[in-house]
Amino acid sequence: MSSTKKGRVFSGMRPTGQLHLGNYLGALENWVRLQDDYECFFCVVDWHALTTGYEETAGLKENVRQMVIDWLSAGIDPEKSVVFRQSDVKEHAELHLLLSMITPLSWLERNPTYKEQLQQLATREISTYGFLGYPVLQAADILAYKGDTVPVGEDQLPHLELSREIARRFNFLYRPVFPEPQARMNQVTLLPGLDNRKMSKSYGNYIAMAASERELGDAVTRMITDPARIRRDDPGHPEVCTVFAYHKIFSPDAVARTESECRAGKIGCVACKKNLSQTMNQFLAPIRERRQELETHPERVDEILAQGARRARAVSSQVLAEVREAMRIE
Amino acid sequence: MSSTKKGRVFSGMRPTGQLHLGNYLGALENWVRLQDDYECFFCVVDWHALTTGYEETAGLKENVRQMVIDWLSAGIDPEKSVVFRQSDVKEHAELHLLLSMITPLSWLERNPTYKEQLQQLATREISTYGFLGYPVLQAADILAYKGDTVPVGEDQLPHLELSREIARRFNFLYRPVFPEPQARMNQVTLLPGLDNRKMSKSYGNYIAMAASERELGDAVTRMITDPARIRRDDPGHPEVCTVFAYHKIFSPDAVARTESECRAGKIGCVACKKNLSQTMNQFLAPIRERRQELETHPERVDEILAQGARRARAVSSQVLAEVREAMRIE
Repeated sequence: MSSTKKGRVFSGMRPTGQLHLGNYLGALENWVRLQDDYECFFCVVDWHALTTGYEETAGLKENVRQMVIDWLSAGIDPEKSVVFRQSDVKEHAELHLLLSMITPLSWLERNPTYKEQLQQLATREISTYGFLGYPVLQAADILAYKGDTVPVGEDQLPHLELSREIARRFNFLYRPVFPEPQARMNQVTLLPGLDNRKMSKSYGNYIAMAASERELGDAVTRMITDPARIRRDDPGHPEVCTVFAYHKIFSPDAVARTESECRAGKIGCVACKKNLSQTMNQFLAPIRERRQELETHPERVDEILAQGARRARAVSSQVLAEVREAMRIE
Repeated sequence: MSSTKKGRVFSGMRPTGQLHLGNYLGALENWVRLQDDYECFFCVVDWHALTTGYEETAGLKENVRQMVIDWLSAGIDPEKSVVFRQSDVKEHAELHLLLSMITPLSWLERNPTYKEQLQQLATREISTYGFLGYPVLQAADILAYKGDTVPVGEDQLPHLELSREIARRFNFLYRPVFPEPQARMNQVTLLPGLDNRKMSKSYGNYIAMAASERELGDAVTRMITDPARIRRDDPGHPEVCTVFAYHKIFSPDAVARTESECRAGKIGCVACKKNLSQTMNQFLAPIRERRQELETHPERVDEILAQGARRARAVSSQVLAEVREAMRIE
């Protein structure tokens, strides 16, 4: 990797299995864009998945695999970026342990996301030591690579602030080893779900990145349109129509015409949906093709993860050596 | 190591530097005795030292070294037992992280030693995430070797109970991987300090295992005797005399005569101390000799720790593979 890059990015995703288009536009597309300007470390954080999901681990391995296939299909290039699985790089666990020694308990107890999640997930037994400590693990993830740039959504800002505080405390107690990682706000394109709510697997209102042409067509058919429009030639209200929201994202060139035709009652919802299906299908075709290629050669994903783990270890083992030296536990 | 052993012992000590005779009789002597009957893993737990001592790590490395020299001088045989340093075996950090995910926070908050130490060390900033979690690290230490037998003092019983609870919870959530480690109460010979209080480095009332003949003599001279005995031929009260407490331990054969001579005022304190010095010197001579040998060949200690780390990893990496398989994160 060249040193003419702007900085070093670390970013992780929990292995949730196949991604949907909301994930793609909300995060993955950003990653793809960052690859040329930054040294990127993209990590499947499977240990993090245990903080809330320690009771259901049966699908974990396959979820890792499916997500990595989506990453690669979306254009993450394992030659440019380091693509790896957290649990393959034990330095994350070691740094987590070392940072745990200097992280005041109160910093973690104050974490707003922690309090919120505890309430949301109240039915499950997640009040564990590891769940309280996940911001320490996140700090370790980033700092094990001296990551200076972290692409985040708004909701991740408190965690990144904690990572910075932990880095500062380490640098103060021992000597300056870590940069203070800065947020790089994602350019988020908010894609609604088929029912106009937030797109989410748990709502069943999503389109998988891996959707086949047929699945895509079915999904678009299910999209909620303007409820006030009964007949084909009724004037439509694109501002309340999910299909139109998608047109704005996937057919920006045709959006003005679509809008005027809809408002004039010149195009029916069925035809409008058909247009969207076609456009989106063109968009998904290359992604789908890359996925099929990887599914035919499953060993490639294994190789990519193995190579990624080696490259990640090469960097993080150096950083850990520095950390141990600073802490005098070489 | 032979499978005809009674079980597998794990035991650790924080690297406090040179040990004193209280440490020897309170714990180390037990370890030496266990070596023939058990597969023993004796570990310098330097990561644990960070839970309370993360701010003062300058002496850590030398403290590890001095303590290991005392172990070896006391008769810990690195051919029989695995002698190693915790931070050399990353499996402890990985298992600590994995167990943290399943350990309810409330179990740690309830830990009586935690509450007590928080109060005792109130002047220092030890309310860290790592300090709260040290019983999880202890559980990882033992379970990384499937240790089934843990020599403990009374004060360690709550921790071992927590290790058992964590092992049980893991076995229940995934599948039975771990034994439930059982306590093996140390046969403790309680050696008072020179001033008859508990022997402790911080009280300055101790005799180092490495004490020279002269240092030993000086220490015995400083021992508090019966304050009611003013003149040499006053009758003494051995039951309140520190020197007599030492005679009971180090000169058991002569103790009856010493007692009667003291009570009859037939032996003075100076002579009595001289006897004790001689007996203790005989006791310490072989220990001192082994230490000198190791100090002359510092590379041997390094080799022993390196070999110990290899042997420890050979076992713990197998156990971790089983753990990952059970948790489905291979």
